[in-house]
Amino acid sequence: MPSLVDLTSGGLLYGGDDNPEQWDRATWRDDVAAMQAAGVTMVTIGVFSWALLEPERDRFELTWMDEVLDLLHEGGIAVDLATPTASPPPWLALEDAETLPMDAGGHRLHHGSRTHYCPSSPTYRERARVITQVIAERWASHPAVVMWHVNNELGTHCWCPRCGAAFRDWLERRYGSLEKLNAAWGTAVWSQRYGAWEQIAPPLRAPYLLHPAHTLDYRRFVSDTLLELYRAERDVIRAVEVDKPVTTNFMGFFRGVDYRSWAGEIDVISDDSYPDPADPEAPLQAALTHDLMRSLAGGPWLLMEQATSAVNWRSHNVPKTTARMRQDALRAIAHGADGVLSFQWRASPTGPERFHSAMLPHAGTDTCLHRAVQDLGRDLRTLAEVAGSAVRAEVAILFDWSSWWAAEEPGTPSDRLRVLPQLQAWYRPLWEAGIGVDVVHPHADLSRYRLVLAPQLYLLDDDGVANLRCYITSGGCLALGPFSAVADGNARVRTGRFPVPFAELLGAGGEEWWPLPEGGAGLVPANSSGALGRGHADTWAEHLRLEAGGICELRFEGGDLDGEPALVRSADDSLHYLATMLDAALLKRWILGLAARRGVVAAHPVPEIPEGVEVAQRGEFTLLINHRQTAVDVPLTTPHLTMLDELEPTDHVHLPPGGSTVLRRALS
Amino acid sequence: MPSLVDLTSGGLLYGGDDNPEQWDRATWRDDVAAMQAAGVTMVTIGVFSWALLEPERDRFELTWMDEVLDLLHEGGIAVDLATPTASPPPWLALEDAETLPMDAGGHRLHHGSRTHYCPSSPTYRERARVITQVIAERWASHPAVVMWHVNNELGTHCWCPRCGAAFRDWLERRYGSLEKLNAAWGTAVWSQRYGAWEQIAPPLRAPYLLHPAHTLDYRRFVSDTLLELYRAERDVIRAVEVDKPVTTNFMGFFRGVDYRSWAGEIDVISDDSYPDPADPEAPLQAALTHDLMRSLAGGPWLLMEQATSAVNWRSHNVPKTTARMRQDALRAIAHGADGVLSFQWRASPTGPERFHSAMLPHAGTDTCLHRAVQDLGRDLRTLAEVAGSAVRAEVAILFDWSSWWAAEEPGTPSDRLRVLPQLQAWYRPLWEAGIGVDVVHPHADLSRYRLVLAPQLYLLDDDGVANLRCYITSGGCLALGPFSAVADGNARVRTGRFPVPFAELLGAGGEEWWPLPEGGAGLVPANSSGALGRGHADTWAEHLRLEAGGICELRFEGGDLDGEPALVRSADDSLHYLATMLDAALLKRWILGLAARRGVVAAHPVPEIPEGVEVAQRGEFTLLINHRQTAVDVPLTTPHLTMLDELEPTDHVHLPPGGSTVLRRALS
Amino acid sequence: MPSLVDLTSGGLLYGGDDNPEQWDRATWRDDVAAMQAAGVTMVTIGVFSWALLEPERDRFELTWMDEVLDLLHEGGIAVDLATPTASPPPWLALEDAETLPMDAGGHRLHHGSRTHYCPSSPTYRERARVITQVIAERWASHPAVVMWHVNNELGTHCWCPRCGAAFRDWLERRYGSLEKLNAAWGTAVWSQRYGAWEQIAPPLRAPYLLHPAHTLDYRRFVSDTLLELYRAERDVIRAVEVDKPVTTNFMGFFRGVDYRSWAGEIDVISDDSYPDPADPEAPLQAALTHDLMRSLAGGPWLLMEQATSAVNWRSHNVPKTTARMRQDALRAIAHGADGVLSFQWRASPTGPERFHSAMLPHAGTDTCLHRAVQDLGRDLRTLAEVAGSAVRAEVAILFDWSSWWAAEEPGTPSDRLRVLPQLQAWYRPLWEAGIGVDVVHPHADLSRYRLVLAPQLYLLDDDGVANLRCYITSGGCLALGPFSAVADGNARVRTGRFPVPFAELLGAGGEEWWPLPEGGAGLVPANSSGALGRGHADTWAEHLRLEAGGICELRFEGGDLDGEPALVRSADDSLHYLATMLDAALLKRWILGLAARRGVVAAHPVPEIPEGVEVAQRGEFTLLINHRQTAVDVPLTTPHLTMLDELEPTDHVHLPPGGSTVLRRALS
Repeated sequence: MPSLVDLTSGGLLYGGDDNPEQWDRATWRDDVAAMQAAGVTMVTIGVFSWALLEPERDRFELTWMDEVLDLLHEGGIAVDLATPTASPPPWLALEDAETLPMDAGGHRLHHGSRTHYCPSSPTYRERARVITQVIAERWASHPAVVMWHVNNELGTHCWCPRCGAAFRDWLERRYGSLEKLNAAWGTAVWSQRYGAWEQIAPPLRAPYLLHPAHTLDYRRFVSDTLLELYRAERDVIRAVEVDKPVTTNFMGFFRGVDYRSWAGEIDVISDDSYPDPADPEAPLQAALTHDLMRSLAGGPWLLMEQATSAVNWRSHNVPKTTARMRQDALRAIAHGADGVLSFQWRASPTGPERFHSAMLPHAGTDTCLHRAVQDLGRDLRTLAEVAGSAVRAEVAILFDWSSWWAAEEPGTPSDRLRVLPQLQAWYRPLWEAGIGVDVVHPHADLSRYRLVLAPQLYLLDDDGVANLRCYITSGGCLALGPFSAVADGNARVRTGRFPVPFAELLGAGGEEWWPLPEGGAGLVPANSSGALGRGHADTWAEHLRLEAGGICELRFEGGDLDGEPALVRSADDSLHYLATMLDAALLKRWILGLAARRGVVAAHPVPEIPEGVEVAQRGEFTLLINHRQTAVDVPLTTPHLTMLDELEPTDHVHLPPGGSTVLRRALS
Repeated sequence: MPSLVDLTSGGLLYGGDDNPEQWDRATWRDDVAAMQAAGVTMVTIGVFSWALLEPERDRFELTWMDEVLDLLHEGGIAVDLATPTASPPPWLALEDAETLPMDAGGHRLHHGSRTHYCPSSPTYRERARVITQVIAERWASHPAVVMWHVNNELGTHCWCPRCGAAFRDWLERRYGSLEKLNAAWGTAVWSQRYGAWEQIAPPLRAPYLLHPAHTLDYRRFVSDTLLELYRAERDVIRAVEVDKPVTTNFMGFFRGVDYRSWAGEIDVISDDSYPDPADPEAPLQAALTHDLMRSLAGGPWLLMEQATSAVNWRSHNVPKTTARMRQDALRAIAHGADGVLSFQWRASPTGPERFHSAMLPHAGTDTCLHRAVQDLGRDLRTLAEVAGSAVRAEVAILFDWSSWWAAEEPGTPSDRLRVLPQLQAWYRPLWEAGIGVDVVHPHADLSRYRLVLAPQLYLLDDDGVANLRCYITSGGCLALGPFSAVADGNARVRTGRFPVPFAELLGAGGEEWWPLPEGGAGLVPANSSGALGRGHADTWAEHLRLEAGGICELRFEGGDLDGEPALVRSADDSLHYLATMLDAALLKRWILGLAARRGVVAAHPVPEIPEGVEVAQRGEFTLLINHRQTAVDVPLTTPHLTMLDELEPTDHVHLPPGGSTVLRRALS
Repeated sequence: MPSLVDLTSGGLLYGGDDNPEQWDRATWRDDVAAMQAAGVTMVTIGVFSWALLEPERDRFELTWMDEVLDLLHEGGIAVDLATPTASPPPWLALEDAETLPMDAGGHRLHHGSRTHYCPSSPTYRERARVITQVIAERWASHPAVVMWHVNNELGTHCWCPRCGAAFRDWLERRYGSLEKLNAAWGTAVWSQRYGAWEQIAPPLRAPYLLHPAHTLDYRRFVSDTLLELYRAERDVIRAVEVDKPVTTNFMGFFRGVDYRSWAGEIDVISDDSYPDPADPEAPLQAALTHDLMRSLAGGPWLLMEQATSAVNWRSHNVPKTTARMRQDALRAIAHGADGVLSFQWRASPTGPERFHSAMLPHAGTDTCLHRAVQDLGRDLRTLAEVAGSAVRAEVAILFDWSSWWAAEEPGTPSDRLRVLPQLQAWYRPLWEAGIGVDVVHPHADLSRYRLVLAPQLYLLDDDGVANLRCYITSGGCLALGPFSAVADGNARVRTGRFPVPFAELLGAGGEEWWPLPEGGAGLVPANSSGALGRGHADTWAEHLRLEAGGICELRFEGGDLDGEPALVRSADDSLHYLATMLDAALLKRWILGLAARRGVVAAHPVPEIPEGVEVAQRGEFTLLINHRQTAVDVPLTTPHLTMLDELEPTDHVHLPPGGSTVLRRALS
């Protein structure tokens, strides 16, 4: 199987999306020269070229692309060649309006933008096949091409009748019979029992709430359908060419698609990452997302898109400083990326993205931004040996798209308990401590982890339950967050004391979920664990009852649940259940305490991380970022080389404001 | 005429919605046993059973329901048998898409939820008739069945062409001729004069504001049309069976339907009440709504649905404590309910309401919640003698759905003057004083009331004017709130000094409505009535001029209206007009002052109600609720028995935090 | 060419919209008498009369209007006769549903309101032509009629297929070939290259952002199409009658139409002005809008609609005091209006505008409001000699609808940099100083202005660039605001250092736009210009680099751009570029400093304007308004007469709170 390793023997990849169809030939030549000067090694070509490659049905104009590929190859720039199927040309919408998607109200959307395709449309699928075949046959053996890039940010949702028909086929495969579907969905509620398959539609706009199992299955169906699009194009390519890896670019924690179920089909896990420079949470969110990508890949992955500075699609687009651009790139590397590509190489003066930053901005090469792009290219060359190295993680965070979808359907006890904020809150103490974390599915082999966290795992199917019970009883340690394991694989609420499949192991059981009124409640340590200290519970609580074997660690103070348990563990310390949302300080004490009890240690050489300094370890390499407004000195446990700046071993690092560096242990 | 009295000879009703179609036979048996243990006397069956009773057109599966009814009857549980027409089965939508409703944009909504029917659809009406007939014929004589429950929360709005045709018929009946309609609606405005009936449509989405008389009449039409649905099913039932009362469950101050116009057609006024435990205004709102229901019924009514704890349809669903559950139930009884039923008996693990609380929660019978359900059943049995007793009310609040609709159309001077908040503000002093209040229509016989309040009565037709003038001139006392009597029955603004029909009686007249800028204005007593004290006016004011006979009680201080009258009364004290929104303290002084001058006295035995204690009187029975976080002692004027706890007469009551009790005067 | 001068030989016009179709004949007579008593000289008739004049297709009822016109003429009231085409009668919607407009989602809107017409509908256009012809032929020679009023607030947008076809024709005329269109729009972006004209649609709802050149051209097309409607009706009138001016009423800075491109076709520029009495910015906004109208007219204009008190279409409609009504009317006069008309003469008791104020309110003639209306009529007669006089302006503010449209498309660096707020911020210091300002297009002859300001001029086509460069190099002085001259006439971003066409003249060039995070940044004067003092930058900044010849006046302090230039000027002081948004005080120092350096002096006689006093000068006449809560004395440089109150010359004016007066220089 081709993979990312095939591309990174020369070191880390560097480059971006190139859109030669927007420029004249003279610019193509200038670009190759500027790419070389910036240390670019690979560019993505063709993402939005369909209308240029096939200006009308079955009339292909390919020679301009020949020329582009030749030029790049001559310049030593490798190519990630995209199928252009993310944005059909206008003629396709005119030829068959049913290639356009419908919204949940049953209204067609129109062309003139991008992603205007119905994933179930036979016409769209056939034309996507044809253009992919043309491209594969023409350029599979071109020496510039080193990777295939299918579509772009696959994620279009559609609610049209044709998707409805495909959904019914999908349901028939899933359930086998209507009886099983009716039972699984609980259609006896509100008289929505289906008497024939054709009575089932996509979850269209209705007078009131839809059945949550219906909407959940539609999300699964859409994810599977989009994966079919990927597979179809990949198979067309594979039929022509078998040695080059195929990718499609992900969008991090994108809600529309279950990337976990896709990962096995994709040779190179690649991701688009756009942390908001104006958001202080963005570095943490980026790190967590990178850990997800590395976990999906089972090793190195590729940062396929990022911004060198501002994006254009927020309402207020704060740009990146050059220091910030470098931080973001190095963070990705430290969390397992083997390359950093940006959208885009040269800024477009037209179109909706005319104010999206680029490696080569509107103002040209003689700019701070472009010089920083060149500097980063040089830095990445210096870090070549990082490519391929592994990140050690002894802690896993559980995450599952189905659970995310089901947890955030309407009609839960509170829409203020959100999955990603919970993940981020639990991840924070580990990230701040520079401890490596994987983000894995509840079905994953957990035996390698000393500690497994499930900050919010509303839906957990029976196999997941079995896997987690097996992990616990085999010496593992699981910490479950509030409102977890509530629903089974069909989003059916498990009845009994919760967390139903774990209550007995835990020695405690819940009676009622208990969203808190404004102001929350206090938290006090139970006798057994004064070390956690006092704190505050907000937004969410649950009414638990301690039973034989359970040990209470925190109790509510004040409010309706005064004196009731808030944090409980099993007597053998293998299972922990938190029935509320802790303030950040208490959450940190609890999670780092668990990690310490489980022997989790950070792999990096920084004994005391100063506040505002970010540390990440990948193999032998340590990334340090100073987020403070002032310089900081960071002592190290052993002498290290600062790879990017100087090569003298040192036992402490000086970081200016915004400074970032990569260390490597000095050979003693 | 059958009525609620037929059902309450044995005391107060207790129970909830039961959904046996969601459960297996073993659970049915468990349920009957648990109902008996909880003191349940009646359950509602069949609300969402259509797809189970008629899985395809004209194929009926009825034996499972036979079995359910038999089991319940054997267990001594009476049944309120519902027609299942609130949620048609999927096959009906497939058979005739025009059974589905359209929104105001002209877009069809879809099935998969509930209430997906167009009330004008002949197909829907015919199928509703058929299933109702099947049910009536099958179970009219079943001994378990004691009441009929038509549809559920009737309130679906539709703007489809068929509703348009029905609307035109309704208009022809109402106006007789197009000329009269054009005159009534004022269609000369904006060139919308209709030249033929077929030119009139429902108030569909238009480029700008619609004519308010058009939208008002459409609301009246929809209310009448939904009442037709009720009548049609009731008549089918009556044709089979004549001795058991028929109900349909209301939704309190539901804006979609004029329940006043419905009340005469319904044997048992029943209501669904879901006060939000997180809202400190909820107890007052619940009490006011209960008073509306009692007034609609002209006596006892039935609390058909409430929640034992949390609901699922708010964004953040704070649960009820068991103390709160008891408070809410006893408040309904104290305001005239002769039974307390909950949605629902057993919590559903699937469907959109999977997190709605129930009498029997997901966690089972061994829970605090279920034990409190059992305790409440016991309490209600203890209070059996309350059933049928009357609430004395010497004060009436005027309320009219047409006026509510018209007052909150777009294009008024301010959308911050809202009807329900005004009602609640004026009700508060009376509720806090434990004074009984009826909520009646302006056409009602008012002669029995010492004081009549019209906090916001924007629209008042000529009959209403005549009725109120008659009341005033016959010795009554009317207090009119701001922006009242502005429009006539067709929502036409009356020209002249306002309140036009009363200005002469009042001795003052208004020139301009005067929404206040942020900050409002001060209020000072006029010489004649220093006792009211100073206060603050917010949001709304009016520019009044005192004329012969009027007496000014409050004047504005500061702002554009500095020195102008804010509160005026007629010389004979029979008519009061408040031209602004008072701060709560001043409003209380004014309203309780009026009540005292009119000889209104509370019927309860609490001479001094401590703050945070709620008191309500029904016949011989007094409800006390302690809303405080601390215990309180409440002295009584005469010795009373505390019915639920002990039976020794006492002249003061001790209430713990959250505590509630029912007293009965001790026989001396 | 007929013009406003033809109407104002007798002095300033006074009156309002009259809607006799809503009233009976007796009221018509009362109205004429009341108009006479109020000093009304002209009323607008017929705006919403279509359904009354043509109750069904080709059946005309005209005699009632004969009678109205005769009555008004007998009463000495002139008539501005409207075509009724702004609100088609219901029968037209029934006859051809395609006369109704579609929204951007492709959904038809409905009748029942107003402006429910598709401007491209042949049926609508034909029926508009017919009714206009009937009216013109019937009343062109009626002695009451002195002006024609085409349609009303022309501004309806539509996205229907027929508009699509017309859009394609418009594009073909504009671009000549698809190649040119594809190049201009940059359709190579996102694969939206058009291969045939019929592939181009209106900018309908799509899955993501549309091409900004596409949406910009659609706005231009809509504006041109609406102008076609105006022209068509005007030409019908002109074919019958050539001596009376034709107008259509504008809506100030209305975003939907490029009034600049319309102005040349309209004999009398007339405007509808509804400043919000609750908004402290409203006086400034009104003054700026009046200056725009005067600039469009190239002299006097007509205030066609205003409110005597509250409007009905805001959510909270604070009324005007009578002092405020007078202020608003006199301000319009002082900024060049030769008449003040109100919507409407008599308040309507029905319809969506039943709570819009009028000259004759619901409460009748014996009201404060109506007396103030009469007083204003008297005041305007007193000011007759003001009619026709000119406003001197030495400062111009550049404004262009295309630039406004393009600047506020999605996808810019920040949606917090808005065009009108920028205009208002820069206008404020001049308005507060009573300095006359014109609002002109970048193509205008600028030679007469000492100072030209471009607060926000995102789009500037090549002709505009040439015009401004010519102005600068011919001795002018131009101050460019942030993000100006970014795009060319097709909304294509100019590449290079910005402001690209001016960077060389300026001696500085920008690299990156730099929206600021919350908190903004400090500003400090550069050495060369300490006089500006320190200040604060908010929301927006740019990364500039000083080059040969440029002089830095302000630098950023703190934040990412610490020490970088914020305000730069060319060495010869002819060009200034502000790269941020200044706090109000610093902006005032800068703009008034520029004005002083350029020798701009106020024409009014107030040497020191007290805070809260508004001054405006028109010819010999000075308006003073006291916005303070307290009285104020205003010293004058030379003795003046106060025209409305007394006639003794005075060298200072006393203004009570809310007071306003008009002065005229005393002949010495």
